[in-house]
Amino acid sequence: MNAEAEVLFLNESFYHVFRQRDLTMMARLWADRLPVACAHPGWPAIAGREEVLDSWKAILTNPDAPDVSCHGAQAFVCSRDSAFVVCYEKVGDSVLVATNVFAREMGEWRMVHHQAGPCNVSPLSLDEEPEAGPLQ
Amino acid sequence: MNAEAEVLFLNESFYHVFRQRDLTMMARLWADRLPVACAHPGWPAIAGREEVLDSWKAILTNPDAPDVSCHGAQAFVCSRDSAFVVCYEKVGDSVLVATNVFAREMGEWRMVHHQAGPCNVSPLSLDEEPEAGPLQ
Repeated sequence: MNAEAEVLFLNESFYHVFRQRDLTMMARLWADRLPVACAHPGWPAIAGREEVLDSWKAILTNPDAPDVSCHGAQAFVCSRDSAFVVCYEKVGDSVLVATNVFAREMGEWRMVHHQAGPCNVSPLSLDEEPEAGPLQ
Repeated sequence: MNAEAEVLFLNESFYHVFRQRDLTMMARLWADRLPVACAHPGWPAIAGREEVLDSWKAILTNPDAPDVSCHGAQAFVCSRDSAFVVCYEKVGDSVLVATNVFAREMGEWRMVHHQAGPCNVSPLSLDEEPEAGPLQ
């Protein structure tokens, strides 16, 4: 599997874990040693593994948190050891655009950053094209 | 200069070029050969150098576009050849949180991705701490 396919697979795993609300797997997806950050929609950025995982714990254990699905993921490989994925998140009736950054840590791809923010894409367009999405 | 300082410098250059509305320098900051993407606030993501630079042309040549300033930039080095910066953008009376991804292309750091989205940080807090910013 090439780097592009590997990070797209990891990106899918991230949203699977998000939907399953599996904090243990979420912790495994994120890098252990590399510096990490996260910017949840509407909030200031968070830096550091402990702080980032605390924020995911708050989200994944919140019974009112809506379901999320990932659409139109596209991978951009920056180097042998780093890549990012841009995709759309359908969260309830809203659509967010997301950047997920991945890097190899001890040879394994791990997540090092996530940012999601609102975007003016219709959730219906995501339903129609669950694989392709509206990346221009 | 280490990688962290190098990408922080490039991040500053990006906002300088943004403020100066210098499309030639903006084109130089972005990678030529590596795949690039960009997610402007509220809009779907854009992929490809030509498409990304076209979007910057529309912004930089728009006389109504407000000024932007960068605050609280923090660098996260992923590998020898890749890093990202998280920072805050003061745009008029709003604050955006931004991710800027950089990668080395032929040995030189270039921008490969930018995402900015709204966040609930007071612009006043940025005025008070122009260097530190509210990164948590």
